[in-house]
Amino acid sequence: MPDRITLYTAKICPYAQRTEIALHEAKADFVRHEIDLQNKPEWYAPKVNPASKVPAIAYGGPETPSDDPSPQSTKLAESLILVEFIADLFPSAGLLPSDPVQRARARFFTDAVGTKLTPAWHAYLQGKGSVDALYDAIAFLQALLPPGDGFAVGAYSVADIAITPFLARARVALLHDVGAYPEGEGKKVLETLTGGEGKFARFGKYFNDLLARESFKATFDEAYIAERYKARFGNLRNPQ
Amino acid sequence: MPDRITLYTAKICPYAQRTEIALHEAKADFVRHEIDLQNKPEWYAPKVNPASKVPAIAYGGPETPSDDPSPQSTKLAESLILVEFIADLFPSAGLLPSDPVQRARARFFTDAVGTKLTPAWHAYLQGKGSVDALYDAIAFLQALLPPGDGFAVGAYSVADIAITPFLARARVALLHDVGAYPEGEGKKVLETLTGGEGKFARFGKYFNDLLARESFKATFDEAYIAERYKARFGNLRNPQ
Repeated sequence: MPDRITLYTAKICPYAQRTEIALHEAKADFVRHEIDLQNKPEWYAPKVNPASKVPAIAYGGPETPSDDPSPQSTKLAESLILVEFIADLFPSAGLLPSDPVQRARARFFTDAVGTKLTPAWHAYLQGKGSVDALYDAIAFLQALLPPGDGFAVGAYSVADIAITPFLARARVALLHDVGAYPEGEGKKVLETLTGGEGKFARFGKYFNDLLARESFKATFDEAYIAERYKARFGNLRNPQ
Repeated sequence: MPDRITLYTAKICPYAQRTEIALHEAKADFVRHEIDLQNKPEWYAPKVNPASKVPAIAYGGPETPSDDPSPQSTKLAESLILVEFIADLFPSAGLLPSDPVQRARARFFTDAVGTKLTPAWHAYLQGKGSVDALYDAIAFLQALLPPGDGFAVGAYSVADIAITPFLARARVALLHDVGAYPEGEGKKVLETLTGGEGKFARFGKYFNDLLARESFKATFDEAYIAERYKARFGNLRNPQ
């Protein structure tokens, strides 16, 4: 039986959402503490995460208010480490395949999310990278998917948790045409990536399957993300 | 009983040595194939690793010469993924702690090796970063070590495998004063880091314990590394 879990998180943050999805997949009992990233509470860095980032988990120790975590709880950070931690704590959730080869494949897919997809997406969003570089990253990931259907390594796993929050936020940005890429291009790119036809047919199916997952829907506030993305990236084409 | 393992590796490469240490710790039977990174064989990228890097593993499949790997074997890459793969294949080696919190700590230490230590070291070696930035990275890692003695999370683990090849190569470079940092500084920095006194006393003990490990010594050719480092970094202070 796992110990007490307090999650420090922020709705806006894709890294933090990874941890929330994993906790929902595991049907874990946990206390959720939203951190305002624009105005972080003073106690957060000294008492929870010296790097002052979300997500972080306080694990174990006596019951205290989440804004006054006990020094006796273990503080853990870094989203992918937390996702594997949750997978380890709740093996019945099946978030890590039991076969070592499949585990390695899940981790390889996860690694490519961080080294290929997220840099290409952020560069595209900010007008510093081409749509072709984004498509190259997607093509790399698509080639790792099992043919036909299924998640990254077949059954839903840590690899799918790693990518989902980034695709979900990219979808919102593209849908609202928010970013520094050419005006009007957002919806076309979104259709290419999720329409389920053409060169990204397999990826489109995967994309839609990820966003249909209950653990994703329970942890994603689309209206809030859309508002925040418009405020943050809406003026990139016409900086003041 | 694990399947057939062929490791594609290179003595010079710290990432590749991680995998070799893990295989030695696991007492695994494997075929070792040295790849000349300056002159890679044509079959390597198409038949083993499309990214054309070492380390990579061919796992399973029928027996074939290592320079003609079977399409039926599974090809895996990325050093940390391979180390966890070996830890998963050979649980009796105990390379991953069984406690989820300790596993998370081992992964956090490993993450800091890649995000803090190796960038600070390479910047210092190439004259692009200060010795203080290197010391900051070391201080961060030192603070994660258990007090007194023991490896990163107590028992020897994937975290120690992740750092060892980098420290070993840094030691060789500093010992021979090879790099773009100020002339004569190498031995002083090495003494600070490994002398077992002063602000890095705890780290120095750890450093020496890592290099005394049998799996490290069996996979490190110091004379070869010294030659190669002199050739590659020996002229950095006086570029032609």
